[in-house]
Amino acid sequence: MQSLDLTASSIDITRALCDIESVSGNEREIADAVEAAISGRSHLEVVRDGDTVVARTDLGRERRVVIAGHLDTVPVNNNLPTRVDGRFLVGRGTVDMKAGVAVQLKLAAELVAPAVDITWIWYDHEEVSADLNGLGRLAKSHPDLLVGDFAILGEPTNAVIEGGCNGTLRLDVTTRGVRAHSARAWVGRNAIHLAAPILTVLAEYEPREVDVDGLVYRESLNVVGISGGVAGNVIPDECTVSINYRFAPSRSGEEAIAHVREVLHGIDLDVEIVDLAEGARPGLEDPLARSFVAAVGGDALPKYGWTDVARFSALGIPAVNYGPGDALLAHADDERVDTAQITECERGLRAWLTGA
Amino acid sequence: MQSLDLTASSIDITRALCDIESVSGNEREIADAVEAAISGRSHLEVVRDGDTVVARTDLGRERRVVIAGHLDTVPVNNNLPTRVDGRFLVGRGTVDMKAGVAVQLKLAAELVAPAVDITWIWYDHEEVSADLNGLGRLAKSHPDLLVGDFAILGEPTNAVIEGGCNGTLRLDVTTRGVRAHSARAWVGRNAIHLAAPILTVLAEYEPREVDVDGLVYRESLNVVGISGGVAGNVIPDECTVSINYRFAPSRSGEEAIAHVREVLHGIDLDVEIVDLAEGARPGLEDPLARSFVAAVGGDALPKYGWTDVARFSALGIPAVNYGPGDALLAHADDERVDTAQITECERGLRAWLTGA
Repeated sequence: MQSLDLTASSIDITRALCDIESVSGNEREIADAVEAAISGRSHLEVVRDGDTVVARTDLGRERRVVIAGHLDTVPVNNNLPTRVDGRFLVGRGTVDMKAGVAVQLKLAAELVAPAVDITWIWYDHEEVSADLNGLGRLAKSHPDLLVGDFAILGEPTNAVIEGGCNGTLRLDVTTRGVRAHSARAWVGRNAIHLAAPILTVLAEYEPREVDVDGLVYRESLNVVGISGGVAGNVIPDECTVSINYRFAPSRSGEEAIAHVREVLHGIDLDVEIVDLAEGARPGLEDPLARSFVAAVGGDALPKYGWTDVARFSALGIPAVNYGPGDALLAHADDERVDTAQITECERGLRAWLTGA
Repeated sequence: MQSLDLTASSIDITRALCDIESVSGNEREIADAVEAAISGRSHLEVVRDGDTVVARTDLGRERRVVIAGHLDTVPVNNNLPTRVDGRFLVGRGTVDMKAGVAVQLKLAAELVAPAVDITWIWYDHEEVSADLNGLGRLAKSHPDLLVGDFAILGEPTNAVIEGGCNGTLRLDVTTRGVRAHSARAWVGRNAIHLAAPILTVLAEYEPREVDVDGLVYRESLNVVGISGGVAGNVIPDECTVSINYRFAPSRSGEEAIAHVREVLHGIDLDVEIVDLAEGARPGLEDPLARSFVAAVGGDALPKYGWTDVARFSALGIPAVNYGPGDALLAHADDERVDTAQITECERGLRAWLTGA
């Protein structure tokens, strides 16, 4: 088994974590390494659940913070092992999100007397179907381990605090016509032609920008897929349009569905909800959040992409994202993290957790 | 080998022909049966080319007529052997177009002294890619065998003469955008949204009805396929729309392409011509055609679907479609021919060919 040296720099720990390949479903080795590295410390109680590792302080502090990161990555594509390019560390997982995990592991080992009690969670299966998610599993198998007053997820945010997240709704709408030979088109009814107003309405749609607890969330409503057609000489009887709506956390999932129906009002179609994930409000009114923003410095921003902060939000725990790396490079083949951001996140988190 | 009795009724010959399965590419057995049945007659010279059988009179008549039908069918789908349902004969090939071939075979055998010289052609590979078409092959290998003053194709027309045919153009148009994560849609450019005006323009398009040599051809312009989309969380960078234009035979293929470009004028897209087949003018001004219409009785109609009459038209030979069966039932699983139309076509063709 690969062993992790948590006395190394958080940059070196990032590299060591990345070089343990851990595509979703293959997290055993990295979870073993994390468990071994963090165990045997008197200030931490360690629990293993599948390939999720939890480490808790129990210092009787007034407030408890949950700090979490996922161990898995999307598939490798000739981008491992990592390599160094100037001040960048290049390779799968550098951004999403082993740099964040490295910072957390180093601080978990070093902060033997933090200002708050901390529950550190490193979990599996974040990059795949939501029903496999290790954090979701833990919420069911050990709900006590998720209890806290505030949560921080180490997803890449360019080392800036990003509060909450937009919700996401995906639905398929289908128009139905009547099939016919295309040489006698007037005998049929063209389902793709019937989809024209759907595309027009969505192409012309002006997405909202919504202020939620002081952060402005930018929405988007897009067609992300379309398919229709039987053969080159047949009038098609069916056309399916896949729509993705990213909605501000002030809107519930039910309200999001109602909004899309309203936008498409008057168009004759079938609607199927494919998936729906509620957003999360930023939770920056919480005193813990305020002190965290003050310790990190600068302003907090809204998170546009959906992240597991929504799971904490659903449990009533205010949660923010804070981690090294540019989210636009997550999943990219040339995924790379600015190592200065790793150091900066370690500084910001350490300052806050030690009450400096 | 199955033997064909050409002294039987044209209805019984239809049934015998259908019960020799001959899906495109598998015409050997039926071509053998046709060749054997038509050979050894002093009034006919028989030529075999692949699975095409040609039988010619050479009586020194002033004018020569080419009469043709294809031997192949689209795939069988639990609709063979044939069965009788009231006055209908039911099964694959009954409409498209073995009833037409049966009438032709019977008359080829019986008319030892027709009023015009006749070149009978029964050919292979009509229902598949145009480059395999037996009539097209014959035009290259034995161009002399296609020479004539007038041509009749036995495609199903409900026993009414249908003149010429519309041309058909298929093209793919592609819009191009910029891929992005759908949580940050404003970073990209949605190629499916860019396709909205294409669908709108074509859905609103009013097809022409065009008088060509006294017959009114109805055109159609349709989207027959659309595809676009990368994943449920990605703004798509490409969307392809497949368009089929059925155009009146007064318009050339080049003019048809120019027309579609004009209709889509101002929309930013790439155009790829997928296939193009010229139409055929009805050719009903020809005296032979006029006498044929008179012998059959009733009015001639335009043919909307593309047929091999266009091959004759391209050789400068006026050509019409005339055969039993409803073209709307061609290729249908419940393909069925009204046997009264078989008898009617035999009567009409016999009357004209004998100069009655």
